[in-house]
Amino acid sequence: FVKSVFGKDGMTSVRFAMVGGGGGAFIGPIHRMAAALSGNCELVAGAFSRDAHNSQATGVQLGLDPHRCHAGWETLLSDEAARPEGQRAQFVAIVAPNAVHAPAAIAAMEAGFDVLLEKPLADGLSAARAIAQAAQRTGRLVGVTHPYIAYPMALQARAMVAKGELGAVRRVAVSYIQGWLGASEDEGGKQAAWRLDPAQAGPAGAFGDIGSHAFNLVETLTGETIVRLSADLRATLEGRRLDDDGAALFALSGGGKGTLIASQVCAGEANGLSIAIWGEKASLHWAQQEPNALRLLSRGKPEQVWRAGSDQAWLEEAVRTGCRTPGGHPEGFIEAFANIYRDFSDTVAGRTVAMPAFAPIEAGLRCMAFVDAAIASSSADGRWHWVAVHNG
Amino acid sequence: FVKSVFGKDGMTSVRFAMVGGGGGAFIGPIHRMAAALSGNCELVAGAFSRDAHNSQATGVQLGLDPHRCHAGWETLLSDEAARPEGQRAQFVAIVAPNAVHAPAAIAAMEAGFDVLLEKPLADGLSAARAIAQAAQRTGRLVGVTHPYIAYPMALQARAMVAKGELGAVRRVAVSYIQGWLGASEDEGGKQAAWRLDPAQAGPAGAFGDIGSHAFNLVETLTGETIVRLSADLRATLEGRRLDDDGAALFALSGGGKGTLIASQVCAGEANGLSIAIWGEKASLHWAQQEPNALRLLSRGKPEQVWRAGSDQAWLEEAVRTGCRTPGGHPEGFIEAFANIYRDFSDTVAGRTVAMPAFAPIEAGLRCMAFVDAAIASSSADGRWHWVAVHNG
Amino acid sequence: FVKSVFGKDGMTSVRFAMVGGGGGAFIGPIHRMAAALSGNCELVAGAFSRDAHNSQATGVQLGLDPHRCHAGWETLLSDEAARPEGQRAQFVAIVAPNAVHAPAAIAAMEAGFDVLLEKPLADGLSAARAIAQAAQRTGRLVGVTHPYIAYPMALQARAMVAKGELGAVRRVAVSYIQGWLGASEDEGGKQAAWRLDPAQAGPAGAFGDIGSHAFNLVETLTGETIVRLSADLRATLEGRRLDDDGAALFALSGGGKGTLIASQVCAGEANGLSIAIWGEKASLHWAQQEPNALRLLSRGKPEQVWRAGSDQAWLEEAVRTGCRTPGGHPEGFIEAFANIYRDFSDTVAGRTVAMPAFAPIEAGLRCMAFVDAAIASSSADGRWHWVAVHNG
Amino acid sequence: FVKSVFGKDGMTSVRFAMVGGGGGAFIGPIHRMAAALSGNCELVAGAFSRDAHNSQATGVQLGLDPHRCHAGWETLLSDEAARPEGQRAQFVAIVAPNAVHAPAAIAAMEAGFDVLLEKPLADGLSAARAIAQAAQRTGRLVGVTHPYIAYPMALQARAMVAKGELGAVRRVAVSYIQGWLGASEDEGGKQAAWRLDPAQAGPAGAFGDIGSHAFNLVETLTGETIVRLSADLRATLEGRRLDDDGAALFALSGGGKGTLIASQVCAGEANGLSIAIWGEKASLHWAQQEPNALRLLSRGKPEQVWRAGSDQAWLEEAVRTGCRTPGGHPEGFIEAFANIYRDFSDTVAGRTVAMPAFAPIEAGLRCMAFVDAAIASSSADGRWHWVAVHNG
Repeated sequence: FVKSVFGKDGMTSVRFAMVGGGGGAFIGPIHRMAAALSGNCELVAGAFSRDAHNSQATGVQLGLDPHRCHAGWETLLSDEAARPEGQRAQFVAIVAPNAVHAPAAIAAMEAGFDVLLEKPLADGLSAARAIAQAAQRTGRLVGVTHPYIAYPMALQARAMVAKGELGAVRRVAVSYIQGWLGASEDEGGKQAAWRLDPAQAGPAGAFGDIGSHAFNLVETLTGETIVRLSADLRATLEGRRLDDDGAALFALSGGGKGTLIASQVCAGEANGLSIAIWGEKASLHWAQQEPNALRLLSRGKPEQVWRAGSDQAWLEEAVRTGCRTPGGHPEGFIEAFANIYRDFSDTVAGRTVAMPAFAPIEAGLRCMAFVDAAIASSSADGRWHWVAVHNG
Repeated sequence: FVKSVFGKDGMTSVRFAMVGGGGGAFIGPIHRMAAALSGNCELVAGAFSRDAHNSQATGVQLGLDPHRCHAGWETLLSDEAARPEGQRAQFVAIVAPNAVHAPAAIAAMEAGFDVLLEKPLADGLSAARAIAQAAQRTGRLVGVTHPYIAYPMALQARAMVAKGELGAVRRVAVSYIQGWLGASEDEGGKQAAWRLDPAQAGPAGAFGDIGSHAFNLVETLTGETIVRLSADLRATLEGRRLDDDGAALFALSGGGKGTLIASQVCAGEANGLSIAIWGEKASLHWAQQEPNALRLLSRGKPEQVWRAGSDQAWLEEAVRTGCRTPGGHPEGFIEAFANIYRDFSDTVAGRTVAMPAFAPIEAGLRCMAFVDAAIASSSADGRWHWVAVHNG
Repeated sequence: FVKSVFGKDGMTSVRFAMVGGGGGAFIGPIHRMAAALSGNCELVAGAFSRDAHNSQATGVQLGLDPHRCHAGWETLLSDEAARPEGQRAQFVAIVAPNAVHAPAAIAAMEAGFDVLLEKPLADGLSAARAIAQAAQRTGRLVGVTHPYIAYPMALQARAMVAKGELGAVRRVAVSYIQGWLGASEDEGGKQAAWRLDPAQAGPAGAFGDIGSHAFNLVETLTGETIVRLSADLRATLEGRRLDDDGAALFALSGGGKGTLIASQVCAGEANGLSIAIWGEKASLHWAQQEPNALRLLSRGKPEQVWRAGSDQAWLEEAVRTGCRTPGGHPEGFIEAFANIYRDFSDTVAGRTVAMPAFAPIEAGLRCMAFVDAAIASSSADGRWHWVAVHNG
Repeated sequence: FVKSVFGKDGMTSVRFAMVGGGGGAFIGPIHRMAAALSGNCELVAGAFSRDAHNSQATGVQLGLDPHRCHAGWETLLSDEAARPEGQRAQFVAIVAPNAVHAPAAIAAMEAGFDVLLEKPLADGLSAARAIAQAAQRTGRLVGVTHPYIAYPMALQARAMVAKGELGAVRRVAVSYIQGWLGASEDEGGKQAAWRLDPAQAGPAGAFGDIGSHAFNLVETLTGETIVRLSADLRATLEGRRLDDDGAALFALSGGGKGTLIASQVCAGEANGLSIAIWGEKASLHWAQQEPNALRLLSRGKPEQVWRAGSDQAWLEEAVRTGCRTPGGHPEGFIEAFANIYRDFSDTVAGRTVAMPAFAPIEAGLRCMAFVDAAIASSSADGRWHWVAVHNG
C-alpha cells in the first residue's frame, strides 16, 4: 500500500520479487523496509526460503498473493515470467546466501528480469564474472547494494570531488571497525557462523564482509580506482581460518595514496565506518555513525559543516531529492538503503537518475578483485599487488 | 504490502484510514512513511482532500481501492462503518488542518473508530476538551503524534528518570530553536502562511507549534508535570500577530525548576530541539539532531554515552525493540514516527505496549493548557501562572 | 625570569604586587601562572597572607626579595610607594577575600597604583561604588578578571557581533552549570564554606559566583546591556541560606531577549559555561569547555566552525595576537587568564590594546547590579526588574 | 619570579640554561612558557644565538644577568661549570638546529650537566648514538621533548593500557595530518625552508618531523615497541626532495598490528594528531586537538568519556597532578609541555616521578630507527623492515 509514499505524481510503481529473506533473516527485512520507504516499488512475489512453509508464511504476512510465494527461485521465475506484462515482477532482489547469487541472478536475467543483488556480487570471482557476462549477454540491469554510498552526504561528497572542489586527491583514510567478533563466545550466532566458515563466506572474512564496503566507498567517492595495494590480514583469534582484522596501503589511479582498515575484533566498536579524503584545495571527513554531517576543510578558509536536508539549497539537487525531510530531521541507514531501491526502480522504469545510489556491477566485480589482491599481498609479506579486474 | 516488514510472527496488520494528507501536504507523507516502516498497520481508505479529484488521485497512487477514497471525512466514516468487520478501518489518522480535528475525531469515535491525531489536539482548548469528552463517552482510544518522545534514546531517558537513576530532578533546560521564519521573505510559503495567521493557527505561534513539543518532551521524560510558569513571548518581526520567539521559567511538580525556549527566528538553525535534565545523582543531555546518543553525567563517575541499537544490552527492553537495527546503524525522524504507528496499532489491536511512543490525550490537553498559561503570563509582565487542565 | 616569554622586542616588563594568594589559596596560583605566561609583567612584591610567616614563605618560594613580602597590604603599599620609580610595583593585583577588595583597592589607588581585581569587584554594591569613585577621583585604572571573556574565540565572537555580522541580536541563551555543591557532603571544603556563608559571600550564592560570569559574557559579547530581568532563584539543598540554583529571563538594550541559568547542584557537571547568540543574519555557539571552536550558523549558508590559532588569517588581528600558538595547538583557561594580565600590563604601560581581555570597572559594577536585580525579582514572584547601575 | 607558581612547599627551583631560542625562533618561546608554567625550574643562562647581540638582547629581555648570556654553547658551558654549585645551571635545554644537538649535548654532559633536547635527538642515527654513548659514559640524564605524550589524558591512556584494562592490544591507528606545506607557495617561510632541505632536516621530511611524534605516541601509550613496518613515503609536490606524505603498516611487539599516517600536504588540516588503540576488552580514542577528553569503548558496556581535571577522582594520581586546574577548565599544548619541564626538573633534583612526561633517550633513538626503517621499506616497494636500534 505504500508504493507511493514518496513518489512523484503519475509515476507507476515498479513491481519486484525477492529471493531469500524468509523468517529469521536479517537483511531481508531491511530490504523490505527500504522498499517500503522508497515510494516507487512494490513487492509482488517471492521465494523467501527453500522451506515451502516458511516462504508461504513470510509472503502471507507481507500481504502477498499465496500463489506468488514459492519454495525456490526456479518456480518463482517461471511463474512470474508467465504472468501478463502489467502484472509480473520487473526486477528480482536477491538476498539469499552468496552461493545462490550467480545461478539465481543469471537465470533471472535470462528470464527477462533485471536484478538487484545484496553485496557481495557472488561467492567468488568466477561466479561474479559469470553474472557480468550474463548481464552483457542479456542486456539486463544489475545493481549491487552498498548502502554506505547511498547516504545523502556520501553522495554530496562524491559530487564535490567530481566537481573538482578538492583539487587532486592526495590521500584517503578509510576504516571500518567493528567489535562483534572480538571474543570466542561471539562465534555462536547465526550471523557469525557463516562469516567464519570459508566454505560459506569465501576466501576472506572481515576484508570481504566490511573491507569491501570501505573499498567501494573510496572508489565511489573519489571517482578513481584503487590500482595497487599492500595488505596485511590476519585471523586474530585462535582457530579462525579467515581474516578478522587487517589493513592495507593503497594507490589511487589519480596518483593519491591511502590506507584502509577493516576489523571485527575491536572491543566496544559498533559499525564504525569513516572516511577522510584529503585534497590539494580542500578535504572531506565523513562518518557513517553521524551520517547527516559532512565536514569540509579548505585551504585558507574556516571549516564548514554541510548537513543533510531537502531544503539545504547549497547541496546538489540529486542529494536534496535523496533527503525525505528538511534540515534538522535526521535520516539514517534505512533511508540510505531506500535510496537504492528508489534509484534502481527508477532506472528499471526507464527514468534517468543523476547519481544512482546503487552500485553498478563493475563495482561488485572490483570489490571481489580487491579482496583477492589483498589476500595475495598479505600472503606475500606485503608485496604490492595490482587490483585488476580481468574480463572473461 | 509492507504491513509486516517489521512485524511479529502471526500478528495481524491493523487497518487504518487517513483524513487529510492529499497531494502537496507535508505531514501526510511522513505519516505514511512511518506507517510503512511500522510493520503492523495498513492504510486502507482515505479522505485525503476536500477536492474529490485530489483525494482520488492520492489514494490511487497509494494503491488504494478508488471506492475507499473520499472527498470528505463524513462519507469516509459512513462508508467504512458499513463495511464488514474484517475489512473496515480500525482507526482513523487525522492529519488535516487543526480546525478539522475536533469534528472529524468526535464523529470517528462515535462511529466506532479509534483516532490518532497529528499534534495539536485541536484548534483551541474547548475543542480539545470536546474531543476528550467524546473519548470518555465512547471509550475509544485517542493518540497524539509527538515524534520527539518516540526516539529510542528519548524513551531510554524517560525510563532512566522513572527508575530513579537521576534522583530528584533539580533543573531542566529545553529549547526548540528554528530559523525558517526569520525574515519577512520567509512568510510566503504554504507552511509559513497558516502558522502566521491567528485564524488558522490559534492563539499561539512558535509556542504552539514547537514550544508544545518542548513542553511535552519535558513532561514525558521527567514523568512530572509543569505546574507553573512565567513566560515572555513576542512577535519579533514587524507585522506579525503571533509569537515567533519566546521563553519561560517553569516549576515541576516534583520541586525542580526549568527553562523553555521556543523560537523560529534564529538565523541558521534548522530543527534544534535539545534537552538537559539535571538530577541529584545524575544528569542527562539529549539533542534531537543527534538522536542516537544520550549523555549521562553522574556524580563521582566518568561521563557515559549511551547509544541506540537493538543489540545494546544495557538499554531498556522497550527501547531495544524500538530500534530496527543493531548499534552503529543510525535511525532517525521517520523511524521515531514509525514507533508511534507501531505502538498505536498494537494498542488498537489489544496488545500490551510497555512504554507507548504515542502521546495520550491528556498530554494533548496539557500542551494546550501550557500555551494558554504562557500567553497569560506573558501578557501579565511575566507573572507566574498555573498550567492547569480543567475538566469540562 | 619569564617576564618576556611572550613579549615584543624592546618592551619593558611591568612590575606588580599581589595582595592575597598565600599558601593554600586556589586563585592566587592561577593569577601567577597567568602572569608568567603573559610575557610582559613581573611579580615584585606581595602581601600574600595576614600570617607573616605564610606571606614570607610564599614570597621566598616565588623568588621574591623577602623585604618586599608583607603581612598586610598597608605595609606593602607604603613600602612600595617609597621605592624609586624604576623599581616599585606599577599595579596591584588583589586576590584576597571579597571584603578586602574595597579598602585595599582604594588605598592602592590613593597611593598611586593601578589595580587589577579578582571578581567580584567587592562584597557589596556600596563598596563597589566606593572603588569606582576612588578610581574616578584618582584617575587610576581598575580591571576585573572575568577570564571567560578573555578566550580568543570569545573575543572573536565579540568582534563579529560588533561588526554586524549577526545583524540584530534576537535571542541569547547563556548557562553556567556546575555540580560540585550538589550534595550536603560537598559543603565541608574551603572553597564551599565561604560561598555558602552570606557573611562572606554576600547576598547571592550561585548567581553571584558564576551567574555574574554568565551575565558579563552576555554583555561583553553582545556589546549590549541587559536592561531588565525576571529571575527565579532558590536554595535547593536543605539548610542553605543562599541560592545554589536559578534562572532568569532577560531583555537586552537592543531589543533582543534571553535566558540565563546558573546552578551549582547539577550532578556530574564540571564547569559548563556556554552561550548561544542568535541573530537576524547569523548565530554563534560557544562553549567554554571546548574553547577553541566557535560555531557560526548563517542564514542560507553551510555552518562554519572557526578555530583559534595565531595563523588563522580570517580571525581578527586582536584575536590572533591573543593566541600563543598556531592552529591545532589547543590553548585553555590559563592562557585566557594570561591574556588579561598581558592586556592590563600593556594598558598600565600606556600601550594601546584593541580589545582588552580584562573587564572594566563598569562591568564589575554591572555584575553587582545584576545580582541585586535578580534577588529582587526572585523575591517578588518573578516580577521584572531593571538592571540599573546608579552612580553615587 | 614564577619558579614556584606550581611548586610544592619547600621545593627548590631547578636552574637551567638554554642553547638556541634567540629572537625569531618558534620553539624557544614555547620552551620558556612551559618552564614558566612548570613551577619548579628557572632559566639562569643561555647561548640563545650565535649572534652575540641577539643572544644578549634575548637574555636581557628575559631578565637574565648579561654575563650569563653567550654567543656560543662552548662559553656557556665553561662559564656555568665554573660557577659555584648553588648558582650554576643544573641542566641544559637544547633547542638549537638539529646539527647542534650532538656536539652541544655531549659537551654539556661531559661538563656535568643533564640535558633536555628538543626532538629529534640529533640530525642522524650516528650522532644520536654518540649522544646515547655519552649519556652512558657520563651517567647524565637525557630527556627528549615529545609534548603529545605529556597531555594528562595521554598519560591516562598509557596508565590504562599498562594496567591491562584493554586486554591485549589488537590494533592501533595513529595519524598526524597537517596542511601547511600543501602548496608550492608555502615553501618560503623559515619553518618550511629547513624542513624541506635534506642538508638541514636529515633523510626524512614529514616522517621525521611529525611521523616520529606519531611513532612515539604509539610506543609510549601501548608500552610496546613497533617491531616491523611496511612503509610508503613520497614527495607529493614537484621538486621536493623529502617525503611530505606517507603511511605505514606496522606490527607491535605484543602481536598487535597498526597503521601510521603522516602528511603535511592535506588541505585545511592544522595539527591533526589522533590515535585509536583497540584492545581485546576495551578501546581508547584520543585526539590532540581536543586533548582533555579520552573515549573508552568497552565490550558489553556503554561508552565512557574520561575528562582531565585535578579533581577527577577516577584518574590516575600521576595524571591528576599533571592537571593544574579542576575539571572543566581546559588545558592545552603549553601545559602539556610544562609537564615535561616539571618532570625533568624533578628528576634532575632527585625527586621520584611516577610516569615521566618527558621521553627517555631510548625513545629518541627509536624515533630515528623508525625513520630509517620507513625509508628503507619505502625504497624497497613496501617490503617489511625491522625497526631495530643497534647499539654502538
